[in-house]
Amino acid sequence: MVKIVLVGAGNVATHLGKALKDAGNEILQVFSKTERSANLLAQKLEANSIVTISDIILNADLYIISITDDNADQIIDQLTLKNKLVVHTSGFLSMDILGQSSTNYGVFYPLQTFSKSREVDMKSIPVCIEANTTENYQFLKSLASEISTDVREINSEQRKVLHLAAVFACNFPNFMYTIAEQMLHDQDMDFSMLKPLILETAQKVQFLEPLNAQTGPAFRGDHTVMQTHNEMLKNHPDLKELYDKLSKGIHKLKNDS
Amino acid sequence: MVKIVLVGAGNVATHLGKALKDAGNEILQVFSKTERSANLLAQKLEANSIVTISDIILNADLYIISITDDNADQIIDQLTLKNKLVVHTSGFLSMDILGQSSTNYGVFYPLQTFSKSREVDMKSIPVCIEANTTENYQFLKSLASEISTDVREINSEQRKVLHLAAVFACNFPNFMYTIAEQMLHDQDMDFSMLKPLILETAQKVQFLEPLNAQTGPAFRGDHTVMQTHNEMLKNHPDLKELYDKLSKGIHKLKNDS
Repeated sequence: MVKIVLVGAGNVATHLGKALKDAGNEILQVFSKTERSANLLAQKLEANSIVTISDIILNADLYIISITDDNADQIIDQLTLKNKLVVHTSGFLSMDILGQSSTNYGVFYPLQTFSKSREVDMKSIPVCIEANTTENYQFLKSLASEISTDVREINSEQRKVLHLAAVFACNFPNFMYTIAEQMLHDQDMDFSMLKPLILETAQKVQFLEPLNAQTGPAFRGDHTVMQTHNEMLKNHPDLKELYDKLSKGIHKLKNDS
Repeated sequence: MVKIVLVGAGNVATHLGKALKDAGNEILQVFSKTERSANLLAQKLEANSIVTISDIILNADLYIISITDDNADQIIDQLTLKNKLVVHTSGFLSMDILGQSSTNYGVFYPLQTFSKSREVDMKSIPVCIEANTTENYQFLKSLASEISTDVREINSEQRKVLHLAAVFACNFPNFMYTIAEQMLHDQDMDFSMLKPLILETAQKVQFLEPLNAQTGPAFRGDHTVMQTHNEMLKNHPDLKELYDKLSKGIHKLKNDS
């Protein structure tokens, strides 16, 4: 059983904290600058709620910093944990920024999009581990294996690329969904019509290479369809440009493959 | 039981033909210019295989034209079905182009991305119906209800928008997946790491509005992350431009909402 202090009470902290507790570990404290957030998560995890960094106790085995990349620097600056093991959960930040807070540090990055309102099956989520010593790595790997079957050693350079790739694999597709929804909405149609298509598109690449799953007018080189789509978008210059750019990209993909 | 002639042997014809047969209807003939394709599907559907348009028999109840939008015109030009009910399965083509082939016509458009290698649960797929008479509409609606629980009346204008929205909801996200895969591949990482993320992103919008599911640096307005991503993409001008464009779109989305 590992004794843990959670620094942060956002989506990642919530899901990770719950999974770690369910696996039999103890969450001692939950810190958040926002008292309500700290209280809410602390209650769920049967932990103490704190809103001041200096109230963090020093008898835990692991300190997990799970706050937005923008605010992490500021929090890390204030943390002095001596030789206590501290990790962050960011896909973006390098591991070394933790070197000022402790002599033992690492990264514990679960690669998933978390919403507070949705349960997620942590077991299948890749957890990317990095640590400043072999011993710390083994400790984190063992802990990660309690909550996920997919634990990987990923260095800071790789993790940065992974994080960028995740923007393309998650944030940008979701933006495409919002565009599609708006189009249907404008014609009195319901977004629910597209839900099976969206799900199947994501399910396909669980089994096929994305290149082999590619379909559509740009991939077929169907210029009649693309021209009509262009005309349909003539009053939406941003979307028209986006359509062109993506279609050209898909066309190039086909020619290069 | 409806007697059907399938004109086309591609992905849509294959899945649709199978679903209609499984629902107890009879596929009399399968036409394809490519003999091998015609034979393959005809065998699956226990139908006769033909490669010449003039061999199409006139005693079926329904003729389903399911060929690429680029080739449809040419085939329809050659079809003379008198008063026999004929439909196409295209999201793009208007219904009226069938008026030259018969006095009874309509559209039977299943909104999904089909691959021959993947089974698809037709029951949940929206089937968009349009017809030139109420009688034809009722006939098609009744047939569609045998294979799907989601049958909708969608006119040609709406269907065109739906088809364009489907490009945004399916083809473009899949292109994003290929970009992400390439990024990981270049850093010796495996695409499988992103699979749970891709699936969850699609599953989220089955329950949440896409706008409420949007996450990522552009949505948060995290300029440090976006700047680093830009630097990482400096040797890939196409991707860099795409990243900028999509990020600006997401940012605008947040401000407008």
